[in-house]
Amino acid sequence: MKLNIAVLPGDGIGPEVTAQAIKVLKAIAMEFNHVFTFNTALVGAAAIEKTGLPLPEETVSICENADAILFGAIGNPKYDDPTTEIRPEQGLLGLRKTFGLHTNIRPVIAYEDLLNKSSLKIKQIKGTDILIYRELTSGIYFGEKHFSDEEASDVCTYRRSEIEKITHQAFKAAQGRKKKLTLVDKANVLASSRLWRKVVTEIAEEYPDVSLECRYIDNAAMELIINPRQFDVILTENMFGDILSEEASVIVGSIGLLASASIGDTKAMFEPIHGAYTKATNKGIANPIASILSAAMLLDHFGLYDEASLVREGVDKSLKLHITTPDLNTKYDNISTTKVGDFIEDFIHNPDETNLN
Amino acid sequence: MKLNIAVLPGDGIGPEVTAQAIKVLKAIAMEFNHVFTFNTALVGAAAIEKTGLPLPEETVSICENADAILFGAIGNPKYDDPTTEIRPEQGLLGLRKTFGLHTNIRPVIAYEDLLNKSSLKIKQIKGTDILIYRELTSGIYFGEKHFSDEEASDVCTYRRSEIEKITHQAFKAAQGRKKKLTLVDKANVLASSRLWRKVVTEIAEEYPDVSLECRYIDNAAMELIINPRQFDVILTENMFGDILSEEASVIVGSIGLLASASIGDTKAMFEPIHGAYTKATNKGIANPIASILSAAMLLDHFGLYDEASLVREGVDKSLKLHITTPDLNTKYDNISTTKVGDFIEDFIHNPDETNLN
Ligand SMILES: CC(C)[C@H](C(=O)O)[C@@H](O)C(=O)O
Ligand SMILES: CC(C)[C@H](C(=O)O)[C@@H](O)C(=O)O
Repeated sequence: MKLNIAVLPGDGIGPEVTAQAIKVLKAIAMEFNHVFTFNTALVGAAAIEKTGLPLPEETVSICENADAILFGAIGNPKYDDPTTEIRPEQGLLGLRKTFGLHTNIRPVIAYEDLLNKSSLKIKQIKGTDILIYRELTSGIYFGEKHFSDEEASDVCTYRRSEIEKITHQAFKAAQGRKKKLTLVDKANVLASSRLWRKVVTEIAEEYPDVSLECRYIDNAAMELIINPRQFDVILTENMFGDILSEEASVIVGSIGLLASASIGDTKAMFEPIHGAYTKATNKGIANPIASILSAAMLLDHFGLYDEASLVREGVDKSLKLHITTPDLNTKYDNISTTKVGDFIEDFIHNPDETNLN
Repeated sequence: MKLNIAVLPGDGIGPEVTAQAIKVLKAIAMEFNHVFTFNTALVGAAAIEKTGLPLPEETVSICENADAILFGAIGNPKYDDPTTEIRPEQGLLGLRKTFGLHTNIRPVIAYEDLLNKSSLKIKQIKGTDILIYRELTSGIYFGEKHFSDEEASDVCTYRRSEIEKITHQAFKAAQGRKKKLTLVDKANVLASSRLWRKVVTEIAEEYPDVSLECRYIDNAAMELIINPRQFDVILTENMFGDILSEEASVIVGSIGLLASASIGDTKAMFEPIHGAYTKATNKGIANPIASILSAAMLLDHFGLYDEASLVREGVDKSLKLHITTPDLNTKYDNISTTKVGDFIEDFIHNPDETNLN
């Protein structure tokens, strides 16, 4: 298969982790006789520095011409001043909006080999396997904004059609899993949540094999920690999905492990959940696994399931052998970002032989 | 002291837990020679059933004439249909708005005797002592709402003056504690959050002895679990405060332990964080401690510190002796809501003699 991949490393640790994902994708291409080409483009603070804009026109056109986008990370404390008008995050939000990437999928899996890394008790999390469906191009992120020194506001709007799209995707995903869908909203307070509840409840009738449960966000934020295994597919709006998915990283043991796919009607982007982690930049301590697993989701997206599986096996093996960055490692010192990427690359070339060396 | 207390038991387990708080307040009045009078009024689903309205005029006037309000719980799945226009929660939101209860204070304390009840590892939570300041009368809860079958929206607006009030309270609280204040917002996306950040940063200069840290809500939802001890006072807007405080209950071990005070310029209300928990109604399994600790916050509010301390000692003793409802108990069966209330009442009368009998 030929795939033209736009690579947007972005800020902070973005470039280092993305480099490992590319390494892994190149190894896959070699082993499976695919042709993957990579075109790098600027986004975020890196783009502001060079062009004045967080999402330059050239980046948009590179993405337009690509089959998929591999995204790194975004953000820089330099832009923390709340009156700053041009900010790195606008690059990421712009990409999501420009390419209509409405459905963000975030898997949360408690790896056997990492159970002891979690802040949660092992018996609490063992076996957790959740798929979060987060709406990504609407809600309070994209509603009208107003900012003055005296008053500021954000509007959270949802249209039925926006809710329908992701809801069907989420129900279909649940059908292939444990057949349970949890809608998370705040329908006891928000009008937009009540529309979510109405639309999702209606659509549920088309999926009689899936059981639907509705929870308020405050309650879900608690239940996710108390009893994460009760969840199968979680469906939610943009802001609640942002909060819940980062919170869910505590189950997995490190935010550096969480990958995501942002799927639109014609384009898809693959992005770790973690941020730019500016303080860690170029120290070799950034965990590349979220980026590598995002690359695996990219492969899945194009039907390259064996390829994606092999990447995931490489990740599993690295975790089992403690070839992991310091956020996870207690066994070895000095396992760098690059070393983890190299290990998984080697594994792809020689799945049966790769061991710690 | 003479105190006229409006009691709004509300729905579900509200009446049972509130009854225990009243029992405790009566014991305090007797021991310390105060005169507390209690006037009960309807709110929520209970009020809708009797009057058609979630916050009847009579309830408002009882509260108006009271020195303080003791609130139970609100909500009933009967009103879950998203098109229902009159809903129980409007009663609670109406109270908060009518009496301008802008500052909601939610303590989160890891009790030594309950460390093993938490889903979190003991070493993770031991010593946690957080005070959450949640803005309670503005933000997306109270902005303009629009609901149709095709589109729905909620507006999140904050005015500078609304932010200033609670911010001063929060800084003052931090001065009397570990002198650290964490603002939780989503300033990388929301205009309203950027105003929060601006105003709070400005006010911080008036409190040079308090260190200010700003965090995004997604990150805070993760850090609260990974390392709760890093927090002292958390300051945040209405919706984020709702989510974070319920999430924080996992540190304490049960949502049934979390109390809160909602303070306005002229009136204050004391309310457990938990909801109506309809399924548990009248089973004697509801934990009354959140309501009893809310009563302790009421006593504190009127400067009755010794009285409040005695109530808290009673609570501590009940926890130490496992005189607790099933959400916490693994030692004894059948310790009911009333039994916990009775124990703490007895303790107040005989602090040195009360034991399990
Ligand atoms: C960087 C930020 C704008 C972004 C978001 O809030 O969506 C991030 O937190 C994420 O979850 O992808
Ligand atoms: C019942 C509900 C409206 C309320 C809220 O969201 O404020 C509750 O969750 C709380 O935290 O007091």
